[in-house]
Amino acid sequence: MDNRRGLVIVHTGEGKGKTTAALGMAIRSWGNGMRVLILQFIKGSWSYGELKAIATLNDAGGRIEIRQGGLGFTRKGNKDAEEHRRAAEELLQSALHEISGGTWDMIILDEFNYAYSFGLIRQEELEQILSARPEQTHLIFTGRNASEELIDRADLVTEMHLVKHPYQKGIKAQRGIEF
Amino acid sequence: MDNRRGLVIVHTGEGKGKTTAALGMAIRSWGNGMRVLILQFIKGSWSYGELKAIATLNDAGGRIEIRQGGLGFTRKGNKDAEEHRRAAEELLQSALHEISGGTWDMIILDEFNYAYSFGLIRQEELEQILSARPEQTHLIFTGRNASEELIDRADLVTEMHLVKHPYQKGIKAQRGIEF
Repeated sequence: MDNRRGLVIVHTGEGKGKTTAALGMAIRSWGNGMRVLILQFIKGSWSYGELKAIATLNDAGGRIEIRQGGLGFTRKGNKDAEEHRRAAEELLQSALHEISGGTWDMIILDEFNYAYSFGLIRQEELEQILSARPEQTHLIFTGRNASEELIDRADLVTEMHLVKHPYQKGIKAQRGIEF
Repeated sequence: MDNRRGLVIVHTGEGKGKTTAALGMAIRSWGNGMRVLILQFIKGSWSYGELKAIATLNDAGGRIEIRQGGLGFTRKGNKDAEEHRRAAEELLQSALHEISGGTWDMIILDEFNYAYSFGLIRQEELEQILSARPEQTHLIFTGRNASEELIDRADLVTEMHLVKHPYQKGIKAQRGIEF
């Protein structure tokens, strides 16, 4: 009998490591022979280092892909809100298609929480995503300000809490750490 | 001018993601062309999935290695304490050698905090490690119960806080997530 059961996982909080831990899970799962899709809800949140590593694993064994959708970070009420909303909508349709298709063992919806908290994704769309999930598929939602609706439905929720940051010591962002 | 500056990073807390986020950093750094060494202070804390992924990246481009030292999880005052202490000591000497050698851009001391909190590593040994670090080398210490001494000396400290766990719903550990 197969004990496999997909989990709904949330990485939230204002600390570092939300996306990085999702990347770690992707890598571990790939190493376990699983098929992993990463969907970026915020353009530019993944940088050269992880893209290169993922491409290398994909070249070696397939089964891992990253797709960029959405636009860059936005602010509530800015003039491009409609454009951001359309970009999120498009990615959401693609996410629904991939999730319900059952091709992937793990799908990471990176910065979903950000897009959701800024109103780029509606509650009924979150419900659609959760309902579309085949029982064995893991879904990982990252980003600060995870909604109560999502946390209620999740199996595993981790909050990354910032205890100390190099900015506090006046140290600039460092390659491999911040980007 | 080179702005590169190594950071002392700590992932602690009782939540998930301490080692997984360190793995993500390792992968990202590798993708950025950096040389990454992972030292496991607790035997068996890394499993097939991540070992396979790391071996694949190493086959493709070198520059990433994982070495196992230390023994399995222990309890204070158990009869093998001396044996654990010797194993930790050995790994510590190897860590000091690798850190001071300057060969690596990033060294992850996985479950160091655990070994330290159980008295397998002494405070003066922690000081030796921190003092041996070349200015451009990143050191990442993972494990719950990070010591005050380490947090004081760290640049970036993140605490992983468990908000909700699948055990609470009676769901068994899942491949790719827990191992």
